Amino acid sequence: MIDLRSDTVTRPSAEMLAAMTSAPLGDDVYGEDPTVNALEERVAGLLGHEAGLFTVTGSLANVLGVRALVPRGGEVLCEASAHIVRAELGSHAVSGGVTTRTWSAPSGQIDLEQIRTLIAPDLGPYFVQTSAVSVENTHNFGGGAVQHLFDTLADELDARGLPLHLDGARLWNAAVATGRTVASYASRAAAASVCLSKGLGAPVGSVLVGSAELIREARVWRKRLGGGWRQAGVLAAAGLYAVEHNVERLAEDHANARVVAEVLADAAPGSVKPDQVETNIVVVDLAGTGRTVPEVVAEARDAGVLVGGVGATQLRIVTHLDASAADCHSAAATLARIIAG
Amino acid sequence: MIDLRSDTVTRPSAEMLAAMTSAPLGDDVYGEDPTVNALEERVAGLLGHEAGLFTVTGSLANVLGVRALVPRGGEVLCEASAHIVRAELGSHAVSGGVTTRTWSAPSGQIDLEQIRTLIAPDLGPYFVQTSAVSVENTHNFGGGAVQHLFDTLADELDARGLPLHLDGARLWNAAVATGRTVASYASRAAAASVCLSKGLGAPVGSVLVGSAELIREARVWRKRLGGGWRQAGVLAAAGLYAVEHNVERLAEDHANARVVAEVLADAAPGSVKPDQVETNIVVVDLAGTGRTVPEVVAEARDAGVLVGGVGATQLRIVTHLDASAADCHSAAATLARIIAG
Amino acid sequence: MIDLRSDTVTRPSAEMLAAMTSAPLGDDVYGEDPTVNALEERVAGLLGHEAGLFTVTGSLANVLGVRALVPRGGEVLCEASAHIVRAELGSHAVSGGVTTRTWSAPSGQIDLEQIRTLIAPDLGPYFVQTSAVSVENTHNFGGGAVQHLFDTLADELDARGLPLHLDGARLWNAAVATGRTVASYASRAAAASVCLSKGLGAPVGSVLVGSAELIREARVWRKRLGGGWRQAGVLAAAGLYAVEHNVERLAEDHANARVVAEVLADAAPGSVKPDQVETNIVVVDLAGTGRTVPEVVAEARDAGVLVGGVGATQLRIVTHLDASAADCHSAAATLARIIAG
Amino acid sequence: MIDLRSDTVTRPSAEMLAAMTSAPLGDDVYGEDPTVNALEERVAGLLGHEAGLFTVTGSLANVLGVRALVPRGGEVLCEASAHIVRAELGSHAVSGGVTTRTWSAPSGQIDLEQIRTLIAPDLGPYFVQTSAVSVENTHNFGGGAVQHLFDTLADELDARGLPLHLDGARLWNAAVATGRTVASYASRAAAASVCLSKGLGAPVGSVLVGSAELIREARVWRKRLGGGWRQAGVLAAAGLYAVEHNVERLAEDHANARVVAEVLADAAPGSVKPDQVETNIVVVDLAGTGRTVPEVVAEARDAGVLVGGVGATQLRIVTHLDASAADCHSAAATLARIIAG
Repeated sequence: MIDLRSDTVTRPSAEMLAAMTSAPLGDDVYGEDPTVNALEERVAGLLGHEAGLFTVTGSLANVLGVRALVPRGGEVLCEASAHIVRAELGSHAVSGGVTTRTWSAPSGQIDLEQIRTLIAPDLGPYFVQTSAVSVENTHNFGGGAVQHLFDTLADELDARGLPLHLDGARLWNAAVATGRTVASYASRAAAASVCLSKGLGAPVGSVLVGSAELIREARVWRKRLGGGWRQAGVLAAAGLYAVEHNVERLAEDHANARVVAEVLADAAPGSVKPDQVETNIVVVDLAGTGRTVPEVVAEARDAGVLVGGVGATQLRIVTHLDASAADCHSAAATLARIIAG
Repeated sequence: MIDLRSDTVTRPSAEMLAAMTSAPLGDDVYGEDPTVNALEERVAGLLGHEAGLFTVTGSLANVLGVRALVPRGGEVLCEASAHIVRAELGSHAVSGGVTTRTWSAPSGQIDLEQIRTLIAPDLGPYFVQTSAVSVENTHNFGGGAVQHLFDTLADELDARGLPLHLDGARLWNAAVATGRTVASYASRAAAASVCLSKGLGAPVGSVLVGSAELIREARVWRKRLGGGWRQAGVLAAAGLYAVEHNVERLAEDHANARVVAEVLADAAPGSVKPDQVETNIVVVDLAGTGRTVPEVVAEARDAGVLVGGVGATQLRIVTHLDASAADCHSAAATLARIIAG
Repeated sequence: MIDLRSDTVTRPSAEMLAAMTSAPLGDDVYGEDPTVNALEERVAGLLGHEAGLFTVTGSLANVLGVRALVPRGGEVLCEASAHIVRAELGSHAVSGGVTTRTWSAPSGQIDLEQIRTLIAPDLGPYFVQTSAVSVENTHNFGGGAVQHLFDTLADELDARGLPLHLDGARLWNAAVATGRTVASYASRAAAASVCLSKGLGAPVGSVLVGSAELIREARVWRKRLGGGWRQAGVLAAAGLYAVEHNVERLAEDHANARVVAEVLADAAPGSVKPDQVETNIVVVDLAGTGRTVPEVVAEARDAGVLVGGVGATQLRIVTHLDASAADCHSAAATLARIIAG
Repeated sequence: MIDLRSDTVTRPSAEMLAAMTSAPLGDDVYGEDPTVNALEERVAGLLGHEAGLFTVTGSLANVLGVRALVPRGGEVLCEASAHIVRAELGSHAVSGGVTTRTWSAPSGQIDLEQIRTLIAPDLGPYFVQTSAVSVENTHNFGGGAVQHLFDTLADELDARGLPLHLDGARLWNAAVATGRTVASYASRAAAASVCLSKGLGAPVGSVLVGSAELIREARVWRKRLGGGWRQAGVLAAAGLYAVEHNVERLAEDHANARVVAEVLADAAPGSVKPDQVETNIVVVDLAGTGRTVPEVVAEARDAGVLVGGVGATQLRIVTHLDASAADCHSAAATLARIIAG
């Protein structure tokens, strides 16, 4: 089976497992796990922030980050297909009492004009205040697109005194694709999350970064939401290994994704634009192909390739650490055949 | 002072006060206030629903209505300047755990294409489910606009099996402006609210309507949110009076608003389009006038006219029961002079 | 029918209605209802606090008061049959994220030893912090008992730097029964609520009092919970009338309750202790009488007397403004006959 | 350093680490991690339930379990020093909208009379309904006490149709101490949690068990609260190893705790009753010793022994997998010397 449903499906390598079994451990609820502390410090440093918090999921990191910036009853703005409003099960409303308004843009991009219109003017205490804007970079349901207006938005929010939240689950991909540092993005945000278990291949975990004070409060809320783990160093060791060894190689995933897109664009012209595939995600629109998402998913599975649906007519293919160039080529050929009918 | 900030500023007339003081009363927590019961039955009947619930505010009616249709962690879609996401202080997230995504459209209109894109396909239990679409009719921050695609959206949602929520705070205005019955709108919604204290002139109160089961549960939640009042019949009597006497006359408010708009369009061409003023709200865009919202609001106050800001450059003028045609003409002349500088 | 189910069943008198219809009104969301403002100022003054907030129910006043003192995830301690944990439908958890621990005491009394044990020591950020203690005075389900250790508890909490919340729904009764001022109680609390629609006979409403800052924030949260009403002065006028005219006369209700208790103690010895009936509530324990609550409630209704159950074997009888001495004597005789079988 | 602050401080052994690195993994969000599935099945079987859910903490397992049994605004009853109300940061109120009332009993025991009084009779929809009773067995802040009335309470709740929630963080200890099976306890509960990272020595994780339907819903809520992890099999492998190898040996921890208690009872008579030390926790009351908690904790740390405070005058000592009999004897001697002054 070639599993291209998500970059979350990777399994730790032998070297990563070795790092995990040799890591010094302690009780992280007491702040005493040296490996967790090392990971938090390392990632905070990489992202240009004072402090970090190791969390069991990116959803938890996002909930803690948004909650830190937006008071109960306040709002965060985001794109309508952002992970925080599509794939976190309403947790920002449920756990944080945070309300959302959204703009829609191709590839989940920042749309400055819409954002300016959405930002609520200060009309007194009886209107919802815009307390933050959240951006996902790269944008998952936007096909792994890099946010090309990131700096412009950050400048504008700075000028307005509004904090930026960065859902950087795949920020590593954005940095590799653009040749920028992750800090060049994350340091513009008041709170940012990065994931260790997607492209980087660690089994579990994300890191939230921000000021020392923000992280101190987020640590208490992490426990309140049931995420205060114990000897998490065994996982943090995998994260540290991933950060040191698996970032640069994301370029391979990006190249593989481009090849998949090209094969499918040949097979079903118009279903995907290869030059818009910037990172490791390929979204294929089956609308004009005569095939449906359930059909293609099922036939691909039978043919040894796992992919998933992300919309009524949209298929998502994600390349990653555990899918070699040969795997990706082979899967692309299989999918091309199926989509072509 | 001519107060055109909102149609909520009206005061009960002598006849309405007489109705209030002669109404039979009881304890509404026990369901024993005959006047409350009469109001709930009357409004439910007018709106084409089984049952009604008298609430202290339209915000409460909306929170109870949306909560009844959307489970915790589910989402309701609405226009980005709808009252439920702009002026209810995040209560749908805070009290209901409901998350929101929004479309943006001129005058707060229904935009079918955007709504179709936003409605989440069923991707399994880990994605946010679209549980309802909410429409505000007329649309307050949309300048009192009637929703012209209401029936088309209702048809489409029926076909998809998705419930419609109707924020009908000014549904009376929509009905009067179009010559339709309120039931022709409200009966299409699974839950609808109407306000008695805006154009209709009652001092306090809204009514939520829906199925008997929905209202039974909403009654318990009304008490949970602190809204289970006692001898509310004194207010329900005002509501009943308003429903019987003050609906048809909304046509006067609409005519007055049109006149105000025409005067201001003459004074500041482009700031308002009189033919888009369908009901009792006039939104004036000061962007091209060289004047700011705070300036105009302050100078108008000094000149005996109260108006309010609803955006960075937008002024809102609302006609109502307590502002005669002469008042409105006079206020329009004053505002025209001030805006012209 | 003689209705002794609750002191919430009273109806406004002709004089109160006259006050309501002549009161100057305005839009309270804008802070412009002069009668509401007068009521809030008057009650705050009576209770020895800076500011007041008129709310539609005592439950709402309590939710806003406790929420102001207890952060999300913090706890308030109270007696196990207090109104805030028994009759407010979990709103403190639902709306405020407030957790509770309780002590149990006869008549709902303050039990200093239990409270001392419950108050959580400061064990760091991962343990629930006791943020306030709430006391109900008089205590509804405790049979209208006055809190005799109120001052001692207030002194002790002062010494610990812990705020006191006072649910003073029937604080007027406590003051009349003891000859103290309501301020002598309420000024000891950081937040206190009093009800206008129980013994005092107004149709709707309570007032929360506290510091100006606490009330400013509570006003925003009142709107967030759907309680920001408009021309509420029509109700505030009733409240002002009640405060001026109906407090001293509570002594009559207390005398009537004592008579009811004596009659029932004669008929069913041990079912009630008349000398423990301090105010306007009589709780009768049917355990030793051979009769059940549903039986007695039903037979009393048939005989023209309404009473209610408040426990598996407990009947509650409440005297009030609309039940004369003769009514109460007659009802007592009827109940005595029924309970005796 | 001998660390007796908690049994959460244990580190995985070489054998456990070997199990972790050789376990087959998958993406648990998709339900595809074979090791997680095996652990969930194994623990559900051991506890006599249909299904299990692997969670990052016991707090999360408890929040999910209680939430499944208690609707928003409903209540769960528990002892006043139970973990769910003392050490989970108000999460049941914050995430579940669950309200609590509590009884107090020595050693955190079940007190049937108090529970019977607390259980709310059905007084209609406007009163808080008791929806579950939660019991912690063994009881952490009760000094590791076994719940001796567990079966009696379970019988009584069965008769009333009320579900039992079991916080079984240390249920393994209860079973070993009494010679019973864990299933003999857990199968009486509608939802039960057990911890793998306390006495059993796994680095991270708990398991919630219940009916297949309860677990299916809890799985969605686990993701909503940010706890839907990916290749968690690496941790589940440690849990499986712990369940197979580290349960019976808890008897050693119990023996060690008894010795510590005896040494301290000799040194400071009355500070602890050794015959009440049933499992692996010793709570020492310093009240009569002339020493304070901060003093003893600090001096012990200087002398190489870590212990913690759990109350104003109470010290907690916990024996575990990583503290040998010799370690415990040595620590006891050190503590005895310090407490004696």
